[in-house]
Amino acid sequence: MRLHGYYRSTAAWRVRIALGLKGLTAEQVAVHLRRGEQRSEAFLRLNPQGLVPALELDDGAGVLTQSLAICEYLDETHPDPPLLPSDPLRRAQVRAFAMAIACDIHPVQNLKVLNRLRALGVSEEQTNAWARTVIAEGLAACQALLQGESPGPFCFGDQPGLADLCLVPQLFNARRFGVDLAPLPRLLAAEAACLTLPAFAAAAPERQPDFE
Amino acid sequence: MRLHGYYRSTAAWRVRIALGLKGLTAEQVAVHLRRGEQRSEAFLRLNPQGLVPALELDDGAGVLTQSLAICEYLDETHPDPPLLPSDPLRRAQVRAFAMAIACDIHPVQNLKVLNRLRALGVSEEQTNAWARTVIAEGLAACQALLQGESPGPFCFGDQPGLADLCLVPQLFNARRFGVDLAPLPRLLAAEAACLTLPAFAAAAPERQPDFE
Repeated sequence: MRLHGYYRSTAAWRVRIALGLKGLTAEQVAVHLRRGEQRSEAFLRLNPQGLVPALELDDGAGVLTQSLAICEYLDETHPDPPLLPSDPLRRAQVRAFAMAIACDIHPVQNLKVLNRLRALGVSEEQTNAWARTVIAEGLAACQALLQGESPGPFCFGDQPGLADLCLVPQLFNARRFGVDLAPLPRLLAAEAACLTLPAFAAAAPERQPDFE
Repeated sequence: MRLHGYYRSTAAWRVRIALGLKGLTAEQVAVHLRRGEQRSEAFLRLNPQGLVPALELDDGAGVLTQSLAICEYLDETHPDPPLLPSDPLRRAQVRAFAMAIACDIHPVQNLKVLNRLRALGVSEEQTNAWARTVIAEGLAACQALLQGESPGPFCFGDQPGLADLCLVPQLFNARRFGVDLAPLPRLLAAEAACLTLPAFAAAAPERQPDFE
C-alpha cells in the first residue's frame, strides 16, 4: 500500500495511527500541501478532491480517500485489534466523537479555509482567532460528549480507537493555534494514554520522512 | 425514536431519508436554528455540540448525534435495505463520497460558518460567493469520484444509499446559493432517480412540520 500524505495533515496522521494500531505498513508518499502539490494533475487523478490522505491499494485494486472511510476499511479488512466497539450504540457514539472532529472542527480550520479567509482580506490575527475559536469550541463539545463514559484512559474505555486517532492530531493543531487546553483534562488524559503507544508515537509529524 | 432536526438542515435531512429508506418512523422535534434554539440549555444536554440532528432512542437508551454516525447505526440495526454495499472496498468508496459532502462541503458552508464570516465584516455578497465556491468545487470533485462507477441511476449502482442521501440535500443547498449545476449531469441524474422514491420525497424540507 502507498499512503499519500503530508507530515502535518491531521487527516493523514489519523490514517498513520490506524495503520500502526493494525500492525500494517504502507510506503509513504509526500504531497507538499503548502507548495500546492495536491492540485497537480497527477495527484488529482488519484484523488479528485485534491486532499490527503489517499491510500493506494496493492495491485491497482483501487484508491481510498477520506481518512475515516480509510480507517473503517482497515477495520473491516483487519478486524484485530478493533477501532470500534462491537455494540451498535457504542459504535455510533465513537463515530460521532470522531466526526465531531473530522466534520466540524478540522475542515473549518484547515489550510484551505484559512487561505480562503486570507484571500478575503481577513487579517492574520483574525484568521488565527478563527481557527482558535473553532478548535476550542469543538473540543469543549468533544469533552462533553465523553461525560458518562468510562473513565478511560482512552476516549472510550481501555483500548484506543477511532475517537483517539482523531483526537491526538487535533490537539496538536490546538496547540499550534494557541488554544487553552486547561479546561479539557479528560481529553488530555486520553492523549497522554495514547502517546505511550508505539502506533501513536510513530505517527507523529516529526517522525515522518517529509517533516521539515 | 425522536428526531431533533430543522426542516432545512441538510444533516437532519440525511437522517430523514435514511429512516424512510429503512421504513422507520421517528417523532420529529423542531429545533429552530435561525432562532438559536440549538444553543438552549435543554438542547445542549441532548447534544453538547449544539447541532442537529440528534436522535433520541426509545426508553432512554441514548442519544445519537452526527448524521453519518446515525445512518451507520440505522444500517447496523436495520440491515435491510442496506445503505452500504457489502464489499469493504466499495463500502469505503461510498463512505468517501458521503464524507466528501459531510466533511468537506457542508461544514464549510453551513449557517454557523457563514455567520462567522458576517461577524468578521465579510459582505453578504462575498459570504454567498464563499458558499457558492465551496459547494461548486466540492460537487465537481464528487462527480469525479463517480467516474468509472456503474452508470447508475444512483451514485453507486441500482440502489440508493449513503452517498445519495448526502447528495440530494447538498444539491438543494447548491441551488439555494445559485451554483451552476450544468457541469454536474451525473449528480443530477442520481438526484432525479432518488426523487422518484417516497423516502426521498417525504424527507424534503417543504414536507416537514416546521417548514416555513
